[in-house]
Amino acid sequence: MAEPLALGIDIGGTKTAFGLVNRRADIILKGSIPTTGHGTVEEYVAALKNALEPVFSQAGKERIIGAGAGAPNGNFFTGEIMFAPNMPWHGVIPMAKLLSESLGLKVSLNNDANAATIGEMTYGVAKGMKDFVLVTLGTGVGSGFVANGQMIYGHDGFAGELGHIIAVHDGRQCGCGRKGCLETYTSATGVTKTAELWLEERTDASILREYKGKMNSQYIHEAAEKGDALALEIFDYTAKILGQTLADIVAITSPEAIVFFGGLAKAGDILLKPVKKYMEANVLNIYRDKVAILQSAFNDADAAILGASSMAW
Amino acid sequence: MAEPLALGIDIGGTKTAFGLVNRRADIILKGSIPTTGHGTVEEYVAALKNALEPVFSQAGKERIIGAGAGAPNGNFFTGEIMFAPNMPWHGVIPMAKLLSESLGLKVSLNNDANAATIGEMTYGVAKGMKDFVLVTLGTGVGSGFVANGQMIYGHDGFAGELGHIIAVHDGRQCGCGRKGCLETYTSATGVTKTAELWLEERTDASILREYKGKMNSQYIHEAAEKGDALALEIFDYTAKILGQTLADIVAITSPEAIVFFGGLAKAGDILLKPVKKYMEANVLNIYRDKVAILQSAFNDADAAILGASSMAW
Repeated sequence: MAEPLALGIDIGGTKTAFGLVNRRADIILKGSIPTTGHGTVEEYVAALKNALEPVFSQAGKERIIGAGAGAPNGNFFTGEIMFAPNMPWHGVIPMAKLLSESLGLKVSLNNDANAATIGEMTYGVAKGMKDFVLVTLGTGVGSGFVANGQMIYGHDGFAGELGHIIAVHDGRQCGCGRKGCLETYTSATGVTKTAELWLEERTDASILREYKGKMNSQYIHEAAEKGDALALEIFDYTAKILGQTLADIVAITSPEAIVFFGGLAKAGDILLKPVKKYMEANVLNIYRDKVAILQSAFNDADAAILGASSMAW
Repeated sequence: MAEPLALGIDIGGTKTAFGLVNRRADIILKGSIPTTGHGTVEEYVAALKNALEPVFSQAGKERIIGAGAGAPNGNFFTGEIMFAPNMPWHGVIPMAKLLSESLGLKVSLNNDANAATIGEMTYGVAKGMKDFVLVTLGTGVGSGFVANGQMIYGHDGFAGELGHIIAVHDGRQCGCGRKGCLETYTSATGVTKTAELWLEERTDASILREYKGKMNSQYIHEAAEKGDALALEIFDYTAKILGQTLADIVAITSPEAIVFFGGLAKAGDILLKPVKKYMEANVLNIYRDKVAILQSAFNDADAAILGASSMAW
């Protein structure tokens, strides 16, 4: 019999990407549809089914053992997307049930960070680890915690909101309504904010000045790679806040590794080396030099599909 | 056949208490020996065996299904007591192995906070819960985390050091060498320190003034119960630091409940109500009004034996 495949569906705010994945993390077939512009969620699901049918025919549907879907605010326990701010549908959407009925497959839903975490555990740099943390540094900061080889969902499915740890008391205003959340400093959005603020407040010469008003984390990364002092200082400041917070996290779950993923994590060593330095400087002595700082090896386009598909195995 | 029993051994810095416990948390027989004054650890274990033999004879040793031992710095994975500062033996002590060989029973070792956590899950207020946190407020602050019905030990057995989260940046000097650890503020020792400092710095009238220089958390609790404004302010200050930190913890493991135990937790509502208030005021909205704040129902003398014994089931 042909090898079994898992369907991964990454439901993003603008695009829904899908792929059929084998046990070795090869994406055999893939495609996408827009998430927006379909009217009701039922019409969206019907459009997704239409796009998937030729894929199912080509691969042979009997090989597909099930599907996993990752979505912002996806709840593993209920299979619902709950009050996701950047989705075309509002309130509570029973997405796992809708997809399962439409596609005729068992579908597990999860939030993006948890899907990515299971992806790293199934196919990625955390393969074989029983205790680790995944941290996504993107528009926000997300996380997934694994202990005893299992995802920590908490009693309600909402565990793992590392981005909303208060990293700086009375700090920056967060979209959640509170102040000083980790993600206001250490997400791609957060470092961009740091750069824009510092360019206003300071007079340092910096190649970042030419991006003033149109900054993004990629420009800051490039400037840091070129040795720009201000960009390096921004990364050091960001790494300090992140490293201090991770030192506290280590004291809770004592992970073997912390795996970084997402747009800002692509900065690699230029961010992660100082993160490690500050984490080690702040960690309780029993944890020192024991926690690996790793970067996801998945490429961006595939990671979300791999993460989603991994839940089906 | 007579009902099965579990042996619980609580190895404290000065006293070792033991008891035989049934499934309903009744301590059938108990006793104790001093922890100190035995010379080598082998001599201590021999003394403990001597003290246990009449207990075994009376209950019938065949009924005893196994033993659990709780000790400061006890490591569940290795069965060792590791570098415990207040024990008569130094370095790494293979206590589970020594006890098991001497007593002829399977022995699980754990640190006190983890033993107390398993005790609450087995017999106590957390019975039936799959996701909760136990916080001990004693000489230090300890904790045990349960997710998916299992203890979180971390990759090395050292998870759950809530007392060494940095609660106040550049705050009070901690015994661990760092500054601002939660336990320097919210342990029984921490509130005592707050009281002594405030009595120095301030001129408020307070019944606490008569205890100056010989303060303890029980005096502060009694003064607060009598409505002493300074004592109530000390509890409010302590509760604020603890509640803010717990709001961050909730964002990590999303527990159903946080259970409090230990000398300072005996203050009950006068401490735990403001803790809940500050936790709720600081928590991300998706967690609001969902986490129960509970007090352990075990009495002090029995709790450590119950906790230790619970590991044997």
